[in-house]
Amino acid sequence: MTYTLVLLRHGESEWNAKNLFTGWVDVDLTEKGRAEAVRGGELLVEAGLLPDIVHTSLQRRAITTAHLSLDAADRHWIPVKRSWRLNERHYGALQGKDKKQTLDEYGEEQFMLWRRSFDTPPPPIEDDDEWSQSGDPRYADLGAEMPRTECLKDVIARFLPYWDAEIVPDLQTGKTVLVAAHGNSLRALVKHLDGISDEDIAGLNIPTGMPLVYRLDEDLRPTVAGGEYLDPEAAAAAAAAVANQGR
Amino acid sequence: MTYTLVLLRHGESEWNAKNLFTGWVDVDLTEKGRAEAVRGGELLVEAGLLPDIVHTSLQRRAITTAHLSLDAADRHWIPVKRSWRLNERHYGALQGKDKKQTLDEYGEEQFMLWRRSFDTPPPPIEDDDEWSQSGDPRYADLGAEMPRTECLKDVIARFLPYWDAEIVPDLQTGKTVLVAAHGNSLRALVKHLDGISDEDIAGLNIPTGMPLVYRLDEDLRPTVAGGEYLDPEAAAAAAAAVANQGR
Repeated sequence: MTYTLVLLRHGESEWNAKNLFTGWVDVDLTEKGRAEAVRGGELLVEAGLLPDIVHTSLQRRAITTAHLSLDAADRHWIPVKRSWRLNERHYGALQGKDKKQTLDEYGEEQFMLWRRSFDTPPPPIEDDDEWSQSGDPRYADLGAEMPRTECLKDVIARFLPYWDAEIVPDLQTGKTVLVAAHGNSLRALVKHLDGISDEDIAGLNIPTGMPLVYRLDEDLRPTVAGGEYLDPEAAAAAAAAVANQGR
Repeated sequence: MTYTLVLLRHGESEWNAKNLFTGWVDVDLTEKGRAEAVRGGELLVEAGLLPDIVHTSLQRRAITTAHLSLDAADRHWIPVKRSWRLNERHYGALQGKDKKQTLDEYGEEQFMLWRRSFDTPPPPIEDDDEWSQSGDPRYADLGAEMPRTECLKDVIARFLPYWDAEIVPDLQTGKTVLVAAHGNSLRALVKHLDGISDEDIAGLNIPTGMPLVYRLDEDLRPTVAGGEYLDPEAAAAAAAAVANQGR
């Protein structure tokens, strides 16, 4: 008996395309991103992997990716659960900033620290910042849990309670579970599943729109370390491109 | 204290456009239908009616309408519940048949009986019919409740338990509830809310893609009989067009 978990990072967003730090800013998919989402759904069908339930973040790019993928896979009708705990990492005061410009302004070391440090968050965003989510009704119930910036360690801390309470029980009833989320919320989950160290997670990138399948044993350990991409060659090329952002 | 309920029939579907009986056949929206769904979301924003939760059928045309409307209203992130009990009326052996051709073949009286009789269903569909939903995984749990044909009375009988168990409790917690469904499942609900007789419901048509708002008192009675369309002139013209289908 193994459990089946499918991870799907949203397709290319408008700010992926513009090379801006996005975080909690609720940007849409590009046309390319929509096509990636549809292709992701087709890959699920080709692999015979039909989700029974989907979990998404509260962000448009993941919600629309889930909708388009599931529609392409003829699984648009499955139950949906959404949570802010699956959101992208909050990028703090960097939200809305150009990645290349930030690299030039602050230098390689500071840039990589903000992008990939495990426990150093960027400076917090101000409530009156143009790109703050302060006052957004979807986060009205968060209270003190509402982040103003996050490092990957923070993402893990707010993601894992949802994993334990909502996703694991679905897996344990034998459902094929799709998680449609973001680069860093999925890195947080992969780090947890594969037991990746705080240092090594910095080198792990998850490409957009490519289903990543984990078969988990009864102790929720991956039967194949790192899972399996349904289109491994495309995934490897895309992950390399993610690693080069800002260059 | 009033409760706020918004009903939304899906935008034009491929088979609305082709003038075929659809029922449980899971056809997609047309481009016009997608535009209607987006417009429906814009009307919600203009009216300041922001849904807190959405209920949909298990059918693509309602699911995609909900997605597009809510995305246009910046409410894509609200919780979603889905149920077969919100599905369109099962059209039995008429599913997949041309409305005009059926009218010519069977005559006005029989045609209108199948379309608008309260308690006379069309002939049941056979499991091996091209347009049967027998074996569709989304209905695997229905067992003996799986319909092979339905009249409006049957739709009411399977819709109202969901209304009582799932929608009313959401209303009673003060949520603005969006129900994204179908011509006949919404007629079933409107008949119930407005106390319309079995005879008079035959003359009531609900246009595609136009939000219909009910404010309900504490006994769940409409404060305005028939509710209020957010774009009343367009709704009246569209309802007249629905009534003339097959002509």
